[in-house]
Amino acid sequence: MNEKQKIAYLGPKGSYTEVATEAILRDFTNKDFTYEAHNSIIKVIELVNSDINYVGIVPIENSIEGIVRETVDNLLNTREGVYITKETIIPISHCLISKSKNIGKINKIMSIGQALAQCQHYISRTFSKNAELIYTTSTSEAVKQLIDLPDNYAAIGNAKAAEIYGLNIIEYEINDIKDNKTRFVCLGSHIPKPTGNDKTSMAFFTSNEPGSLVNILNAFKENNLNLSYIESRPSKEIFGEYTFFIDFDAHIQNKNVQAAIDKISPLLSWYRILGSYGG
Amino acid sequence: MNEKQKIAYLGPKGSYTEVATEAILRDFTNKDFTYEAHNSIIKVIELVNSDINYVGIVPIENSIEGIVRETVDNLLNTREGVYITKETIIPISHCLISKSKNIGKINKIMSIGQALAQCQHYISRTFSKNAELIYTTSTSEAVKQLIDLPDNYAAIGNAKAAEIYGLNIIEYEINDIKDNKTRFVCLGSHIPKPTGNDKTSMAFFTSNEPGSLVNILNAFKENNLNLSYIESRPSKEIFGEYTFFIDFDAHIQNKNVQAAIDKISPLLSWYRILGSYGG
Repeated sequence: MNEKQKIAYLGPKGSYTEVATEAILRDFTNKDFTYEAHNSIIKVIELVNSDINYVGIVPIENSIEGIVRETVDNLLNTREGVYITKETIIPISHCLISKSKNIGKINKIMSIGQALAQCQHYISRTFSKNAELIYTTSTSEAVKQLIDLPDNYAAIGNAKAAEIYGLNIIEYEINDIKDNKTRFVCLGSHIPKPTGNDKTSMAFFTSNEPGSLVNILNAFKENNLNLSYIESRPSKEIFGEYTFFIDFDAHIQNKNVQAAIDKISPLLSWYRILGSYGG
Repeated sequence: MNEKQKIAYLGPKGSYTEVATEAILRDFTNKDFTYEAHNSIIKVIELVNSDINYVGIVPIENSIEGIVRETVDNLLNTREGVYITKETIIPISHCLISKSKNIGKINKIMSIGQALAQCQHYISRTFSKNAELIYTTSTSEAVKQLIDLPDNYAAIGNAKAAEIYGLNIIEYEINDIKDNKTRFVCLGSHIPKPTGNDKTSMAFFTSNEPGSLVNILNAFKENNLNLSYIESRPSKEIFGEYTFFIDFDAHIQNKNVQAAIDKISPLLSWYRILGSYGG
């Protein structure tokens, strides 16, 4: 790579992904890169897909809501050679943010649907039926929009976004379940060397013959590979047929991984290694 | 049941769930019931949970987007005794709807996030960068809101909603993937008798020991039960622990089902039968 490395992440500035980006970059040896905040997950993934000088950082799973479908589905559409190269887990702590410090004035609350859902009990307890919910595309987008809106609007977002846009935090940690975390992944164009504490992510499609999924999972068990994650996504072609996503605790260079893959290959219509990486 | 049976479904009037409700009710022998459209999935499920005279109809899975998390997560919070009693699959065909017939005036498009996502290529092809997207809580809510809005607003929703609210359909079938279907379920307080073509839905939680999921799935295979569906949802307590949802092709009265459950019970922290039902 002769060109300078570019980091694309889900913005706008002040997003939870920006917090994750800082955590991931702490471990980079080369710190000579430029940052770019983009307003959609698909845009970040497209940049990594079309230019090997890009590294992309996007959310992939929340502890309450589950996987981030936009990330998983679009990752499957990238060229072979785009990989997950690292992951990090960030605590999600939502704040009620407004121009004013007066909670009594607030009757409109903006955020992305998931954040409004994660604070639904707080909202109904605090505002009874008087608050209208307004949906935005991200928490940080909601906070940013407050700048041009009157005092009766509030946003749900993180403390960093409130600081960046010069707004007040009326209340901290308003999410109903306090232990709320999101896992973010770094996407790039290589498989990193083993760290000693790695997982491999893989996607596959199998015909819906009775027992085919069980036979596949058995091959991992027989090779002492612990399956830490399994998720199904619709194939989008035939209703009732699914692409499976699995994670298992080993680097792709581990010889047991190759043995398991050799065993299951004949059972799969298609498979792809999505990365081998550490936390 | 002495009281009249009440049908609660996800509204407002003109929703896709209303179309599914009509399909499901065609097979009911007792047609003496009252209809109620409610504005959230959680409200419909709460009514079925608190009053055995209620039957509830809600979406559970879309062929593009996957499971409807609000339905699956809230179904788990109901009392034992709330079951899926029937399912039906409805084609989803989105229309561009407006007060005016003039597409050239439109610069704001409203709908629920999933519908906007399902028409994203149509929107970018048709409106280039000039249309602002506005998020609502359902497709039919977006269509209903058009009544009070000027000619430059359009909604994405179904043809029935356009008819109910007296609006124009500018274009039919604008979803990017044409073969788009949603599976809806009827919730009630009993397990129906076998129809000869049944499935059983089950949720379970198992400790994350290596191979525990594989052992569970093997018990179904050994009893000739075909697994047609598996989905994981976060436990919401410990990140990385999941509740699994499975469907297999047999009625709960089938003796193989009891044999499989007897085999796996010691491996499960918890399980629940969510219903045995036909289409």
